Amino acid sequence: MKISVIGAGAWGTALAGLLHGNRHAVTLWAHDPERLEEIRRTGRNQRYLPGIDLPPGIRLEKDLQRAVADSQLIVIAVPSTALRETSRALSQFEGIAVSVTKGIEPDTGLTMSGILRETMPRAQAAALSGPTLAMEVARNIPAAIVAAHPDEAMGRVIQGVFHRPSFRVYRSRDLIGTEMGGALKNIIAIAAGVCDGLGYGDNSKAALLARGLAEMRRLGVACGADPETFSGLSGLGDLSVTCFSRLSRNRTFGERLGRGERLEEILARSITVAEGFPTAQAAFHLAQAKQIETPIINQVHAVLYEGKSVRQLVTDLLEREAGAE
Amino acid sequence: MKISVIGAGAWGTALAGLLHGNRHAVTLWAHDPERLEEIRRTGRNQRYLPGIDLPPGIRLEKDLQRAVADSQLIVIAVPSTALRETSRALSQFEGIAVSVTKGIEPDTGLTMSGILRETMPRAQAAALSGPTLAMEVARNIPAAIVAAHPDEAMGRVIQGVFHRPSFRVYRSRDLIGTEMGGALKNIIAIAAGVCDGLGYGDNSKAALLARGLAEMRRLGVACGADPETFSGLSGLGDLSVTCFSRLSRNRTFGERLGRGERLEEILARSITVAEGFPTAQAAFHLAQAKQIETPIINQVHAVLYEGKSVRQLVTDLLEREAGAE
Repeated sequence: MKISVIGAGAWGTALAGLLHGNRHAVTLWAHDPERLEEIRRTGRNQRYLPGIDLPPGIRLEKDLQRAVADSQLIVIAVPSTALRETSRALSQFEGIAVSVTKGIEPDTGLTMSGILRETMPRAQAAALSGPTLAMEVARNIPAAIVAAHPDEAMGRVIQGVFHRPSFRVYRSRDLIGTEMGGALKNIIAIAAGVCDGLGYGDNSKAALLARGLAEMRRLGVACGADPETFSGLSGLGDLSVTCFSRLSRNRTFGERLGRGERLEEILARSITVAEGFPTAQAAFHLAQAKQIETPIINQVHAVLYEGKSVRQLVTDLLEREAGAE
Repeated sequence: MKISVIGAGAWGTALAGLLHGNRHAVTLWAHDPERLEEIRRTGRNQRYLPGIDLPPGIRLEKDLQRAVADSQLIVIAVPSTALRETSRALSQFEGIAVSVTKGIEPDTGLTMSGILRETMPRAQAAALSGPTLAMEVARNIPAAIVAAHPDEAMGRVIQGVFHRPSFRVYRSRDLIGTEMGGALKNIIAIAAGVCDGLGYGDNSKAALLARGLAEMRRLGVACGADPETFSGLSGLGDLSVTCFSRLSRNRTFGERLGRGERLEEILARSITVAEGFPTAQAAFHLAQAKQIETPIINQVHAVLYEGKSVRQLVTDLLEREAGAE
């Protein structure tokens, strides 16, 4: 199949390599043409996937329209904050558009596939989400992920495109639930990182994780998700790896806050913004609008957007009086 | 309240210190009198809680009957394989008996509170379970746990006994579910440790964790548990910390297997048996009897009791063809 990967960050690049390995004709587009030039010259995307050699057969294309011209399937791997603008430029695309970006749009409360449905009305919008650190996938370390689309036959097509022995693709018809799990867990992971940065232990983190999943489920269900989805790979699975792995960007972001670094400095120095940062704002407003109780999301929002101290966040989250559960 | 802690391993000792800190009159009994002698002499239980100074006010008693004589509540913190024998010796006890041991009895399929109900018919059998590494609790690092008893008023009593700001106690009326979560997660943690030992990454572990929780829930529900319990602290919370924490005994046990150490050597050299070892046998037979599909438990059982290689276990668990989810 002819496939275009839109976005050459860690995840887009890793997936381009994987799809090429699955014998598809893969084109990779990057927002920054220098990224493509570096890959062409060195065979690596050193900034995002240091040390990983990419297969030479991937076509590199800096013009977005030319990148998708003949493709039957495109993989959207740009940051959530750039997804609307990028997909709007692809409004004529008529094939399958698979979002691999985890986020919620602050102004609209839409998940990424929701934006794709608005901006690319002729395409079939789907999502691929799960506990998959890009660096591990690039190294062919086994992982499992969920391909989500309301139509089962379409789900099977996407499953077939990505599946390989070291990358097991499951299917779900619950598109919104699959996406909400992936988006919301980044906010919980920031709180988990704050605990790490302040020197709290794994017990605290486990408690946070259990309560965080309940919160994700409540908000997801209010948006139309199947509650069961949050107990699967794209919910609990993704949440646990993001809260515990050293490699997780959102957990690390929280850890730096917990250690006392200033938010402005972290944002200024980061190569990529942790997706939990914009998502916290979006989820906070979504929960307010739907009147869902989301104490952890509210606390993270208060730290990121209202100047609350991280120490106060942990005190409020972990040390308040326990009630009935 | 007069409280006796039966068992001076890491968890019993940490809880004795915590209960003393909550101003109860605490007596600590140990199977091995030398343990008590060491605590008396040095103020520490160096073997199980290295570096932790215990408060001097804990009464140390080597005679089991004298240890419980006046107590209104006893905490049973002996290994699951010793629980029946120990509790049988306390058959006349009439107060509250709280099991903090995680396991299932192989011959009967009973959880620990089930054994207590059989052996101590005049006592009120309860359980305290959750993601609480003993060493962190001993250091007063915040944690949360579940006190389980079918009767809400009794649950409140137990909650009040253990609760403190750094040790938040929630209540559940689902005693069997709370216990099954704590017991079964140790088996999944052994599989997670095997992945670590073989050099698999966090993606694999997250996939294992999500499938493991589904398996725990299926088997628990077949035994009468509320499915919701497995999404809480004593299920998902405990599972995630046990699968990811460096301090987890069951994960470490699996990691050593994954690295190629022989089972007999690990068992011979361990200070305490990882509870997942006997529990794997119990859960395997329980699942067979109830005709519940438990692929991960079956694989761990095959490695521990049927001589299957750990590499084959991971291949069968992680690399088989993905189907519908």
